[in-house]
Amino acid sequence: MRSPMLTRSLLILGMPVLVLALGHATPPPDPRRAEVILTPGGAPRYAIAIHGGAGVISKAKIPDGGKAHLDSLRAALELGRSTLAAGGTSLDAVEKVVRSLEDDPLFNAGKGAVYDHDGMHELDAAIMDGRRLACGAVAAVKTVKNPISLARLVMERSPHVLLVGEGADRFAAEMGVARVGQDYFHTAHRYDEWQQELRKKRAGAPAGKSHGTVGAVALDRFGNLAAATSTGGTTDKLAGRVGDSPIVGAGTYADNRTCAVSGTGSGEEFIRHAVAHDIAALIEYRGATVQQAAESVVRGKLRPGDGGVIVVGRDGALALVFNSEGMYRGAADSAGRFEVKIWE
Amino acid sequence: MRSPMLTRSLLILGMPVLVLALGHATPPPDPRRAEVILTPGGAPRYAIAIHGGAGVISKAKIPDGGKAHLDSLRAALELGRSTLAAGGTSLDAVEKVVRSLEDDPLFNAGKGAVYDHDGMHELDAAIMDGRRLACGAVAAVKTVKNPISLARLVMERSPHVLLVGEGADRFAAEMGVARVGQDYFHTAHRYDEWQQELRKKRAGAPAGKSHGTVGAVALDRFGNLAAATSTGGTTDKLAGRVGDSPIVGAGTYADNRTCAVSGTGSGEEFIRHAVAHDIAALIEYRGATVQQAAESVVRGKLRPGDGGVIVVGRDGALALVFNSEGMYRGAADSAGRFEVKIWE
Repeated sequence: MRSPMLTRSLLILGMPVLVLALGHATPPPDPRRAEVILTPGGAPRYAIAIHGGAGVISKAKIPDGGKAHLDSLRAALELGRSTLAAGGTSLDAVEKVVRSLEDDPLFNAGKGAVYDHDGMHELDAAIMDGRRLACGAVAAVKTVKNPISLARLVMERSPHVLLVGEGADRFAAEMGVARVGQDYFHTAHRYDEWQQELRKKRAGAPAGKSHGTVGAVALDRFGNLAAATSTGGTTDKLAGRVGDSPIVGAGTYADNRTCAVSGTGSGEEFIRHAVAHDIAALIEYRGATVQQAAESVVRGKLRPGDGGVIVVGRDGALALVFNSEGMYRGAADSAGRFEVKIWE
Repeated sequence: MRSPMLTRSLLILGMPVLVLALGHATPPPDPRRAEVILTPGGAPRYAIAIHGGAGVISKAKIPDGGKAHLDSLRAALELGRSTLAAGGTSLDAVEKVVRSLEDDPLFNAGKGAVYDHDGMHELDAAIMDGRRLACGAVAAVKTVKNPISLARLVMERSPHVLLVGEGADRFAAEMGVARVGQDYFHTAHRYDEWQQELRKKRAGAPAGKSHGTVGAVALDRFGNLAAATSTGGTTDKLAGRVGDSPIVGAGTYADNRTCAVSGTGSGEEFIRHAVAHDIAALIEYRGATVQQAAESVVRGKLRPGDGGVIVVGRDGALALVFNSEGMYRGAADSAGRFEVKIWE
């Protein structure tokens, strides 16, 4: 939303550039080039959304009305917001937010990751830079304290996009990132959840839907979008199972031309519907807003209860849409919005 | 293309169904329900396309004008065509074709897979059923003779979509599929290719683009689409590196509403552009034909030399599009088309 006065001054400022440009062969416009949106006050705009998982979040079971979770979300959101406000990049902001949620034992990523069928923790993460579609991801890593930072190193320091299993752990050793033993990831809460799941399965009850993810999407002052997602997967998953979080196009996507997306929910459903890329495609091919695109996919393609997404558009518009009982989430922008929520 | 007479008899046959339907609450039409296309002769239509990789395929280096490769492609194509002609499903047809190309030492999948940086073979594969978006994939498996069949078992016998590394090999053991030692995958040709790549890197030359993939897409007589892709990845890749082949939405996708796609080329580029899903999205959201959609993505989004795709639409239209020097490929349908090619 440009004010008339700003638009006019931009036109005037633009004139010498136009004249200069005519003197040279001009390259075709790059549709992915950052477009800095100026707010009426003249300050470049930034925006960020975060999530800490979606699913059956029972009000009765969460003590204090979710105060501990909301406090954690608030701290993570402020970390991202202040990074952007200080002129940091969206890539740095989403990595910092996801690192902080990985370190927080309340969420299913890094410390506090769920137990798999072998009683182990295997972690997945992805990060994507909307400026040039650069992306990095790791899956089924067992020794890395902050998988999201390893994903960023895959993006920046390897010719690859996705490294899995032992190979990814070896890459972590080469990169010198902080590594930990499996016991680091333990929390009593997740252990009990796993034991309960095992009892249910022994009794022939259908598998629960115990999952969770953390993620962040951001637009920075330079007009660049980024997305990051990290998870411990689903409780009692088979060893080697990979969900949507580290799959570019499923749980994570960012393209300056359209939007940045991070998803959370039933990973297999997010993969088969290519949820994150489908939202970007609705914006690219149908001209949908981020809200329309997110609702169309979450309500029109996923099954009720499957989960949700956070999306930021190139203009800083935010959409936080879910079809589950709740989604740990937060949103902030340069216009002063700052809120964290669990339920509607 | 229905004949007027066929259309009329279908209308007459449809009447009692309509009357019956009015007596019940009718479920909304399922857009993914198979729509059997009747050809003028009255026989249901089927179509299949296959590939054996794209890239720098030098005419000078391939003996016999590629006769051996063309013979292999012809045999694989006939296997798929006859499966469909006999009333087999598209899912069975693409699995059979890809299995036969995995067993063929000429192509980079199964026997004949490339060497990674550790001198090992790590294999990736995915299969997808367009009828219900069911999909299964494996990555970085080391002991499985036919990764595509393991991918199908992940789809049909596990609650998951993607299994990687050791966990996937253990799942293979549980499923009782044929397993082999690493030496099974060895071919002199791939070993020499790896040694040459190592020499180039030691000399400081840029990394080569030695990759390859096999894949198939098909429409069966029941109107269902399926896609399958399998690969050994890229020569001298890092242990644990996963390309686009097993990534649903990147190298493999199938949706009865739109198309089935299998890709081959620079895996990282296919992942960041979500190539297979992007082609489906162009058909869904822009009404593109399979040819238009494939060309738009391969020529408009990928870089020259990145590779190619094979696509089949719900009407049996085939598109085989690449921007590299060549692509091992074949196409057949119920109208009598049957051709295999390497270059334009």
